[in-house]
Amino acid sequence: MDAKIINPFVEGAIHVLNTVSSTAVTPGKPYVKHDRVAKGDVTGIIGLTGEARGTVSVTFTEACILDVFSKMFGEEMKTLNDEIVDAVGEISNMISGHARKKLEEIGKSLKAAIPTVVMGKNHQLTHMTNRPIIAIPFSTDKGGFTIEVCFED
Amino acid sequence: MDAKIINPFVEGAIHVLNTVSSTAVTPGKPYVKHDRVAKGDVTGIIGLTGEARGTVSVTFTEACILDVFSKMFGEEMKTLNDEIVDAVGEISNMISGHARKKLEEIGKSLKAAIPTVVMGKNHQLTHMTNRPIIAIPFSTDKGGFTIEVCFED
Repeated sequence: MDAKIINPFVEGAIHVLNTVSSTAVTPGKPYVKHDRVAKGDVTGIIGLTGEARGTVSVTFTEACILDVFSKMFGEEMKTLNDEIVDAVGEISNMISGHARKKLEEIGKSLKAAIPTVVMGKNHQLTHMTNRPIIAIPFSTDKGGFTIEVCFED
Repeated sequence: MDAKIINPFVEGAIHVLNTVSSTAVTPGKPYVKHDRVAKGDVTGIIGLTGEARGTVSVTFTEACILDVFSKMFGEEMKTLNDEIVDAVGEISNMISGHARKKLEEIGKSLKAAIPTVVMGKNHQLTHMTNRPIIAIPFSTDKGGFTIEVCFED
């Protein structure tokens, strides 16, 4: 998949996490996902249509999202709960929105579906496509998160 | 939400499960979902855009999908695995496709994103919308499944 398609999601994650929670985010090297196991505990999923049919997911480890949430709201959170779900929905929406805006600037207009958030230890996530699924790992001071992007032209 | 929007998903579920696995499906009364806990163990999620922004999910209990799978492929399956994930992706896609075709006939054209399947005992599913989420329970001889539909006009 073209770096021009992936970079807006990387930039979006760095921008959004810094803006909403002053969390410094370091992107790792994107890779093609071969296994099916989500690398975390809470996932925001957003379907995309338009120039291409796709889906983007943002999967947080528990440690990472608890820290992000605490920084967002100045309130320490020690367990996953409905407020965390809402925060992951909002963060996923903002990352997707940032990426869609950048993609529109290069002529790729995408519409977003209603986001869904899944919470559960060791849930397994599979995007149903025969095209490559690109996973981008991110690290923070308190654990990591992974964005997965897939598109069918 | 209008019954005209919900019925195509109900009909789709009955038609698809009967076609792919000769499973007789009895729909229950649709209700507005107030809690966040998915009523099952494997969920197919498909984002929708077009005339309306939405998402549809199909959540199976383990007993139900194991029985459906066994009938689909004539091969008894006793535990959830990657083949079950693929089957749920395909069934969700077919139900969504059936419903979208029927909705198009009444002038509501929708595009579908790439489906995502989540597998995990007691995973929690939340569609991030302030509009009502309609849940439709279905029963079969071997357990039930639930379709959730939400749209923002």
